[in-house]
Amino acid sequence: MPIVTLTTDFGHSDYYVGAMKGAILRVAPTAQLIDISHQIPPQDILAAAFTLRHAACEFPPGTTHLAVVDPGVGTQRRPLAFKADDQTWVGPDNGLFSFILDRAEGSIHEIDRKDLCAPQQSSTFHGRDIFAPIAAHLCDGLDLSEIGPAITNPIRLNEISPHKSPDQIEGQIIHVDCFGNLVSNITASDIEPWESALRIRFGSHALSKIKKAYADVATGEPLALIGSANFLEISVNGGNAAQRFGLNRRAPIIIEKLP
Amino acid sequence: MPIVTLTTDFGHSDYYVGAMKGAILRVAPTAQLIDISHQIPPQDILAAAFTLRHAACEFPPGTTHLAVVDPGVGTQRRPLAFKADDQTWVGPDNGLFSFILDRAEGSIHEIDRKDLCAPQQSSTFHGRDIFAPIAAHLCDGLDLSEIGPAITNPIRLNEISPHKSPDQIEGQIIHVDCFGNLVSNITASDIEPWESALRIRFGSHALSKIKKAYADVATGEPLALIGSANFLEISVNGGNAAQRFGLNRRAPIIIEKLP
Amino acid sequence: MPIVTLTTDFGHSDYYVGAMKGAILRVAPTAQLIDISHQIPPQDILAAAFTLRHAACEFPPGTTHLAVVDPGVGTQRRPLAFKADDQTWVGPDNGLFSFILDRAEGSIHEIDRKDLCAPQQSSTFHGRDIFAPIAAHLCDGLDLSEIGPAITNPIRLNEISPHKSPDQIEGQIIHVDCFGNLVSNITASDIEPWESALRIRFGSHALSKIKKAYADVATGEPLALIGSANFLEISVNGGNAAQRFGLNRRAPIIIEKLP
Repeated sequence: MPIVTLTTDFGHSDYYVGAMKGAILRVAPTAQLIDISHQIPPQDILAAAFTLRHAACEFPPGTTHLAVVDPGVGTQRRPLAFKADDQTWVGPDNGLFSFILDRAEGSIHEIDRKDLCAPQQSSTFHGRDIFAPIAAHLCDGLDLSEIGPAITNPIRLNEISPHKSPDQIEGQIIHVDCFGNLVSNITASDIEPWESALRIRFGSHALSKIKKAYADVATGEPLALIGSANFLEISVNGGNAAQRFGLNRRAPIIIEKLP
Repeated sequence: MPIVTLTTDFGHSDYYVGAMKGAILRVAPTAQLIDISHQIPPQDILAAAFTLRHAACEFPPGTTHLAVVDPGVGTQRRPLAFKADDQTWVGPDNGLFSFILDRAEGSIHEIDRKDLCAPQQSSTFHGRDIFAPIAAHLCDGLDLSEIGPAITNPIRLNEISPHKSPDQIEGQIIHVDCFGNLVSNITASDIEPWESALRIRFGSHALSKIKKAYADVATGEPLALIGSANFLEISVNGGNAAQRFGLNRRAPIIIEKLP
Repeated sequence: MPIVTLTTDFGHSDYYVGAMKGAILRVAPTAQLIDISHQIPPQDILAAAFTLRHAACEFPPGTTHLAVVDPGVGTQRRPLAFKADDQTWVGPDNGLFSFILDRAEGSIHEIDRKDLCAPQQSSTFHGRDIFAPIAAHLCDGLDLSEIGPAITNPIRLNEISPHKSPDQIEGQIIHVDCFGNLVSNITASDIEPWESALRIRFGSHALSKIKKAYADVATGEPLALIGSANFLEISVNGGNAAQRFGLNRRAPIIIEKLP
């Protein structure tokens, strides 16, 4: 019973998600479909890339991840599939897989098998007409090399890594979760060498310690911690850091090494 | 592993959807439950009918579709089940299946088997007490003829078809999707004979061409196209047509044949 | 194919739900995952307890219910698992299981098996790191006694039962559903002895009859009825009782026995 996850920006009030699920099950009727999220902000590739990375890494080997946040549908952007972390990834070539591509195993393939796709392909809904049936065929055992030619230059988003210099890391907020926690693109290992003496600057504020848990500071107090996603986060114990500091995605967050 | 889809207006914040799923699985524990949508606008039968039609047609033969948008629950409206497109359909007789009924195979049956339903039937939640267990029994192999008498006059919504005259089609917007695209009740085949010379009027605007893809017009420009649902849609490339034109569901859309 | 349900306040726009699902499937790849709700209001234990009770009772014996609404994550609050109604329940000890605990079969156990949890436990996401893998092991057949020591004093919410005196029941609204119906903590059996002569007071209003269905009063009129959850509800036929009466959760609702 192969597992296929779905990550899209289609929301829950349209027929799009249902149609994609049907298109998968028509090819692979025993597939177990697992919703990761259909509430990615419309056309927000970075949010989708972040969500996909942090959910997908928990799934067992052999899982197929189908992700469709696709502002370029109907243009020349390529449809892709590849393997990484013993899992299979299917979706548009627009940066969605930025956090995963470095761990790709074998080639990245452009999907080029019209005969495996919907007989009448719309130009607006490749999720249903291309990605769903291809994901279903791959979860059913089709070899990746069968779906189209290997490519070498998949698109990566710039935002996924901070800029590092000898005494400073310039990162940014890449995710604000539903509790208002500000998740940066700075990882635990980026910070580790400096942890004994650093300053974390964001907005007009600064913190100088990495805490272990929300409860390490008083209620209502801000803190920096390594969140469950292994990225540096700014939070407020019992509060909403995004509202408190008036910060949102793409806001800079700077780590300074102290002397 | 039979597939049962669910389409309701129950939202995701109440226990209703969970209770229905439990009631299905109690009868058919190996059923594979697939959410189409639980975000149908409250009591909006037309929206549910549209969503159901466009999602359900993608599913494999043998699928059971359970749909509960049921403003008449507790009144004399009949509970129904029938087969169409090699699939089974279960829900209230209120127009929900308007797009499907013309393709019904065999009789349409009124559900009349209290012994297969919940032992204590509420008057407010037939989704859990009648439709879920009946859908589960049908997906498990119960013959349709066992659930109750055949009926001949199921309810159909008027809105599902446009009015046609020799040189004009009077349709209406029947769906606004989450991107603001305006989906009409006019199909590709309605328009086909006139496609070389027509005018499409909506609000105080008009278009004279059917385009193939959003990108066929400049960003910010409106276009008419046959959408992924096979209906005529009005869109704005990179924008929101509903907001741009101040139009909503039930707004007229007129196709004029040009000389 | 064991069934595992999920009830959380994580919403649908973050990676949290997806990560929990992955963590379950990594341990129990054939588990059938069923979403009850991920839209519990943030950190609202009473709402989660209510939703869980009313959905879970419909599921077949053997189901595992995983519930994570967990404002105390990272503190000393205990992680629990127990059996009731031939089902298994897993989540934090904070009142989430208030409606279920009275029917517990055998001991209630504190989860104490780090070796079965995620290798690196975050202090902010026990849903993924503790509860998901433990639920998966339990649905896979692990005996409850293997997960940790029995405890005797699990937390119960006060709000789940009304205060009763010889001629009055003092209850409160514990749930407002998506249609605006006001669900109280007063059950059918609480009222039954008095049903022939009672007054139901809420806000500045009063009703003196329990009706069977919305349609038993005119459109726009209020009514009291025993809802599908078996609790006394205040509704407005075709309307929204919460808006009409300006009432919300925790508003008192008083039943007076008439002479």
